[in-house]
Amino acid sequence: MSKVRLGIIGLGNMGATHAANILAGRVPRLELTGVVDADATKPTRFPTVQAFASTEAMIASGAIDALLIATPHFDHTPLGIKALQAGLHVMVEKPISVHKADAERLIAAYTDKRLVFAAMFNQRTDHYYQKIRELIRNGELGEVRRVNWIITNWFRTEQYYASGGWRATWAGEGGGVLLNQCPHNLDLFQWLFGMPRRVRAHCSFGRYHDIEVEDDVTAYLEFANGATGVIITSTGEAPGTNRLEIAAERGKVVYENDQLTFTRNKVPMSEFSRTATTGFAQPETEAVPLAVRDHGGQHLEVLQNFADAILDGVPLVSPAVEGIHSVELANAMLLSAWTNETVTLPLDAKRYERLLQEKIAGSTQKKKSPIATAPGDDFSKSFGR
Amino acid sequence: MSKVRLGIIGLGNMGATHAANILAGRVPRLELTGVVDADATKPTRFPTVQAFASTEAMIASGAIDALLIATPHFDHTPLGIKALQAGLHVMVEKPISVHKADAERLIAAYTDKRLVFAAMFNQRTDHYYQKIRELIRNGELGEVRRVNWIITNWFRTEQYYASGGWRATWAGEGGGVLLNQCPHNLDLFQWLFGMPRRVRAHCSFGRYHDIEVEDDVTAYLEFANGATGVIITSTGEAPGTNRLEIAAERGKVVYENDQLTFTRNKVPMSEFSRTATTGFAQPETEAVPLAVRDHGGQHLEVLQNFADAILDGVPLVSPAVEGIHSVELANAMLLSAWTNETVTLPLDAKRYERLLQEKIAGSTQKKKSPIATAPGDDFSKSFGR
Repeated sequence: MSKVRLGIIGLGNMGATHAANILAGRVPRLELTGVVDADATKPTRFPTVQAFASTEAMIASGAIDALLIATPHFDHTPLGIKALQAGLHVMVEKPISVHKADAERLIAAYTDKRLVFAAMFNQRTDHYYQKIRELIRNGELGEVRRVNWIITNWFRTEQYYASGGWRATWAGEGGGVLLNQCPHNLDLFQWLFGMPRRVRAHCSFGRYHDIEVEDDVTAYLEFANGATGVIITSTGEAPGTNRLEIAAERGKVVYENDQLTFTRNKVPMSEFSRTATTGFAQPETEAVPLAVRDHGGQHLEVLQNFADAILDGVPLVSPAVEGIHSVELANAMLLSAWTNETVTLPLDAKRYERLLQEKIAGSTQKKKSPIATAPGDDFSKSFGR
Repeated sequence: MSKVRLGIIGLGNMGATHAANILAGRVPRLELTGVVDADATKPTRFPTVQAFASTEAMIASGAIDALLIATPHFDHTPLGIKALQAGLHVMVEKPISVHKADAERLIAAYTDKRLVFAAMFNQRTDHYYQKIRELIRNGELGEVRRVNWIITNWFRTEQYYASGGWRATWAGEGGGVLLNQCPHNLDLFQWLFGMPRRVRAHCSFGRYHDIEVEDDVTAYLEFANGATGVIITSTGEAPGTNRLEIAAERGKVVYENDQLTFTRNKVPMSEFSRTATTGFAQPETEAVPLAVRDHGGQHLEVLQNFADAILDGVPLVSPAVEGIHSVELANAMLLSAWTNETVTLPLDAKRYERLLQEKIAGSTQKKKSPIATAPGDDFSKSFGR
């Protein structure tokens, strides 16, 4: 096999982007051999590709080796289970599931380890985040003490929410910014720092938009070692911010506006504090030059890595089983806001699912008719880093 | 009267600095005519100034028109009351009191409005903060939606805490970073944004130092208009950060490292969101050049302003009555951490005082002997901006 025959289910913004990239030859080892969408007009955009009436039909056809799932979030779980059980390799868009219990079900279906099961956490390919991870893992930063990540560059207009009937409803999406935009950052967060022990979050529901789910979040996190963190995200702010600050024993890292800086303490801060003979002294610091090439291959690199993992057995950039962590973080933040409690991890998945079902049952959201959509809305602008 | 005759009570770091500045002629309209310190050796540093055995004696002598209080915090209230009742003008170091009930008592004693009653919030003289305040007050920024202020450049060594017996104990100081270093920032915060309605804070007690009070704080704040805020402060981090970010309808302001930037939205963000015809569009922005001269006159300017207010009736830069707000913010953060509750303002002053008394009664803090202090510890490094 020299190429992986890929089917895509879901030709919305993301699915159509992946399809177009593959058809343009940008992922050399993937061949698009099937598409499915609930809206039968959408596959007509890709006339050279066989359209199927359903995922079941596409699986049964034998036309695909692998399935890329780019549907609304709730369908990720049942479709992923179906595909894995049919012996297909699976690439699932983020989030891998809407809630932890679903993520557990999806991962439980991954029994045949000869299959490749990946998730679309494309920001893991960014060399800036890879460099930060390297500094942490090789000990150069020392113990992490505090993290502050402001990610408010996910601005979306009212029209964005009005344009998709499933969007930003409990039933359709199971959440707002935490489930749709922020999974990238939540995944990077746990990939860089591991999972916190406790989460206290303040979510505003429909603060900036006429939606029932959260579009503005401030979360406080505590780790087992006492480290603290704050994550702030919003789809209502413009101009937004994406700034990650890490305070660690051996120095401080800040990543913002394509600038990654590392200010190194010549003596780790706590050791300096214990041994200094004066009260107002500070450790000497030095700016450490960091060579970072670029932001990596993003979606294309994750797709190519998926094909390489299938064809050559290379390690995955973002295994889908790791996708449960960002789901759990998002769930914990919503649970904390709903219950006004500090949530201790691991999250009670059954309780969360039950409360989410209550939100779905109690949903009163009626979508407004969308404002007439201007042609050529530039979705590529949405790949916030 | 061409000069104000000033007495200083408390010749620790701050009091001695003020005394030296005045004696050096750096506050032309103040004349230092009396000093008091519990440690009788301290006044000998200022041989040209009359030393008194007590504040009462200094007041009774008729040698001073005004009193500058630079004692440990708990004494601010009784000394301030005594001085006001004796008809003296008063300048009180921050915080004006340790807790809100004391601040109310102190302010209640300010009945003779011919007296000038000021507080040492020297950072109000910083032209950078003045410019931010101007942008808010003249409407240029539009409604403020979110504030993030990281103030972790208050690094203090273990030796700092070991060197002052009253420091960082419930009985001696009534708190840690919130009562000693951060009052400046808490005052600026309320001066810029007003008081929040709700406070949820996470305080770590003795996280970085062998002390019983808080040396690390993350606080979440909500305002009546729905605006949110995060304040993070610590005396354990190096290199620290001092970064204030303001997200408002008409743009974003960031102040860090002596750089103040204002990115203006050509259309306010919420209006843009409501009227845009595409989902991923964003308001156009422009960088607004801000001319800011310098960081102002700081302590010297506040002292001169105090003299000018007494001699010429000019308005105060920092009236002491406004000092209750930073006390209330600090108290609310500690109360939230102690009780694991979200604190609604106005704070229940009596409850807070009662809980603080319990902390004082339950204090087990034994100060370690200080490490031998090196000569020439540079206190001036401590004026974090």
